[in-house]
Amino acid sequence: MIPNWLMQRAYLTPDKIALSFEEEKWTFAQLNDDAVVIARKLRANSLNEGERIALLGSSNSEMVVIIHACMLAGLEIVMLNSRLSKKEIAYQLDDSGANTVIVSNELSSVVADTPVRQLLFSTIKESAEQAFVIQESWQSDRTITIMYTSGTTGFPKGVRQTAGNHVSSALSSVLNLGLDEDDVWLCAMPLFHISGFSILVRSVLYGNEVQLHEKFDAVKSAKAVRDGSVTRMSVVSLTLDKVLRELEKDNSVAHSSFKSMLAGGGPVPIDYLKRAKVLEVPVLQTYGMTETSSQTATLAASDAMRKMGSAGKPLFFNQIKIKDTETPGEKGEVFIRGSHVTPGYIGRFSEVDPLENGWLPTGDIGYLDSEGYLYIVDRRSDLIISGGENIYPAEIENVLIAHPNIREVGVCGKEHSEWGSVPVAFVVVSGNVKEADLIAYCEERLARYKVPKSFRFVDELPRNGSNKLLRRKLKESVDLE
Amino acid sequence: MIPNWLMQRAYLTPDKIALSFEEEKWTFAQLNDDAVVIARKLRANSLNEGERIALLGSSNSEMVVIIHACMLAGLEIVMLNSRLSKKEIAYQLDDSGANTVIVSNELSSVVADTPVRQLLFSTIKESAEQAFVIQESWQSDRTITIMYTSGTTGFPKGVRQTAGNHVSSALSSVLNLGLDEDDVWLCAMPLFHISGFSILVRSVLYGNEVQLHEKFDAVKSAKAVRDGSVTRMSVVSLTLDKVLRELEKDNSVAHSSFKSMLAGGGPVPIDYLKRAKVLEVPVLQTYGMTETSSQTATLAASDAMRKMGSAGKPLFFNQIKIKDTETPGEKGEVFIRGSHVTPGYIGRFSEVDPLENGWLPTGDIGYLDSEGYLYIVDRRSDLIISGGENIYPAEIENVLIAHPNIREVGVCGKEHSEWGSVPVAFVVVSGNVKEADLIAYCEERLARYKVPKSFRFVDELPRNGSNKLLRRKLKESVDLE
Repeated sequence: MIPNWLMQRAYLTPDKIALSFEEEKWTFAQLNDDAVVIARKLRANSLNEGERIALLGSSNSEMVVIIHACMLAGLEIVMLNSRLSKKEIAYQLDDSGANTVIVSNELSSVVADTPVRQLLFSTIKESAEQAFVIQESWQSDRTITIMYTSGTTGFPKGVRQTAGNHVSSALSSVLNLGLDEDDVWLCAMPLFHISGFSILVRSVLYGNEVQLHEKFDAVKSAKAVRDGSVTRMSVVSLTLDKVLRELEKDNSVAHSSFKSMLAGGGPVPIDYLKRAKVLEVPVLQTYGMTETSSQTATLAASDAMRKMGSAGKPLFFNQIKIKDTETPGEKGEVFIRGSHVTPGYIGRFSEVDPLENGWLPTGDIGYLDSEGYLYIVDRRSDLIISGGENIYPAEIENVLIAHPNIREVGVCGKEHSEWGSVPVAFVVVSGNVKEADLIAYCEERLARYKVPKSFRFVDELPRNGSNKLLRRKLKESVDLE
Repeated sequence: MIPNWLMQRAYLTPDKIALSFEEEKWTFAQLNDDAVVIARKLRANSLNEGERIALLGSSNSEMVVIIHACMLAGLEIVMLNSRLSKKEIAYQLDDSGANTVIVSNELSSVVADTPVRQLLFSTIKESAEQAFVIQESWQSDRTITIMYTSGTTGFPKGVRQTAGNHVSSALSSVLNLGLDEDDVWLCAMPLFHISGFSILVRSVLYGNEVQLHEKFDAVKSAKAVRDGSVTRMSVVSLTLDKVLRELEKDNSVAHSSFKSMLAGGGPVPIDYLKRAKVLEVPVLQTYGMTETSSQTATLAASDAMRKMGSAGKPLFFNQIKIKDTETPGEKGEVFIRGSHVTPGYIGRFSEVDPLENGWLPTGDIGYLDSEGYLYIVDRRSDLIISGGENIYPAEIENVLIAHPNIREVGVCGKEHSEWGSVPVAFVVVSGNVKEADLIAYCEERLARYKVPKSFRFVDELPRNGSNKLLRRKLKESVDLE
């Protein structure tokens, strides 16, 4: 049994700041009061305890209040990704069986053609309130959110995250990161992804402020890191790089109270870690996914340089193993166990058990070193097998990103009559650089078979809503050639 | 499912300090290694997974290793109070059905006459090791410890504390107190009480050091508070007062890194709180019991002066209510709910359900103020009813303890032909003070009917193993008059 998060937090520390957005701030008592009003208005719109709705909106304060209101009202929330196409959203609405889609006015056209009942933010606000008894505690297996997996690796599945999953994740994290009552987490990740949503959960459990940015903005983020108004921030490699570039512009360092960048969504290039160190920005590399309610392993700040490239050790209540091996250094599929792991999917995958003998197979390839540190070598579906040799795109990307003229890089395999597959690199460059230069650069640093057979000079790389590189999209464009 | 605490901690942060005792220190890896060796020796002595043993020893490093070894070996541990009489211990051994009592050599005479198999610490050490597979994770309903209630209120009952209870308690606490990797908890409370044992649990969950003192020593404790070698300490009113007196001797204040005294085992006199403030010693008053695996409510440091005398608000995963009332300020029995609450007893009370509709009735009288802060007015069994008026001993004690010549005070009721019961005070004084002075002092500060009808000048007050005042013993001596 878990207490109703927001209600309990508003009781325990009513006057602490819960949320800041643009120029406004909310205490936990204010956030709770606002959410209770909206919850009553949802009830007046015939949304009842235990029903499943979908939610589509931007990452702003209004959205935060509505998210909490849905939880207070006992609803299961399908968090829709506002960057998806109409077709993709229609699929999720259909698959989830949501009886209503709650949508912000500016995004209403996205769902206008679907058969699902639409409820605009403005309609809710104009509704009367219908009082009801708000549950003071929740069963830990209550489904709080449903998120469709980003699709980096395959077909979208609606992943359930229970109250117990979210709590376990937040508590495991606090045992790793520590906790201070003055901590403030900068959220510039979308709330519809677990990376952003989990910041809201940690806020109510810890009693800490969230500084919410509607969109990632490198200048604004760098300012917050520099002026001490935030102590933690969640990033992916791309956004980390952009914040670092901002700080580098005027040679400023992070404020002494800034504690860490939690960097997820794939490995952080070693070059970035070195630059971050110079700027006094501690970077904690983390490994997690929608199915594990965010972090499952995180590298301690004190190990950042000694174990560069590692995703760290599992968090306290989590366990990680490599399939079919206990030998340090031996690569294989990463398996995860713990109370943060989803109990399963909804919709057409609802009968699929995500676990094998209690363990979640991640589809990712990695190894544990002799001290038990996890290294994610690559997403299994991205593996390039060339002449019988395994090639991991991340290894090539790590080399290229350190090149002074390369801003972004993504590598995938291209079918090849002789070798089966060969690596191809997509690069965003600055200045004047030729393919021959890059090949020469790689030849100095990589085994011959790992050197990309060709380079594509592009303006940007395909990324998902949380800025994670979509190698699958690279692969698709290569396959069309 | 909960990971094996010590094993997981030794994997995650092997080189962090786990324990210091006298001049020695142990890292988590060393503590784990030592405990594994002892666990194998326990196994060689035919102690198997799931069996129940009793443990009797002093609060030293050897005891800590044996406690962890018992957990690794999958044993349920009946923690015996080394300050009890032979008769009391014989009762607990019989009631618990422990198949073996593991006893330190110096305490072996205490159990020599019982029919239970005795296993000396020295015998274990001399044993060969028998290897076995140590469980990597535990079910959360596994019983870790059994502690007989201190008996302040009644007949001793063996209270079960499961892995889930201990974990819930430690996690609730961290959300209230915060967590820093450099925190060090001074343990001068007996390990056989939940106040001391819970410090060991928090240490392995948090990855923090315990500085263990075999016995409470005011000079040593004050030194640690002053020199910054500890950041937190658990105390009761009596030991708090002694530490404060030491600090007052040379007008020294607590080290700037010292964060808090967690003060349990009954209300802290307001006078002590004021003195602590002068000495820059933050005091967090807490309310808890064996049945709630230590803290269930704790007063935040920031509320210490504003809410003097309060035990604070429940910890995050806990809920507190007053029986049969929701009116702020109205007194009644305190009820507690949460995953830190014991599932029940062993032995002759094993059939007794400790809960009423999911709530634990505590037998204590208290109220919640309009902001939801808990005030414990008194132990229900200590209530003095005089001429129809309720008198709470703690109120009288709070007045008397502020008297410059009073060192310790305890109040109980004495049967009276006219009024039913009248209050009587037991005092430990310094200097020359007469009963008439004390009566006059009280008359100035208390309603007439609350003024003690007589004073007993004594050298010490009856206290239990954790220095908690035993008003029941005062009452017994008064009843014999």
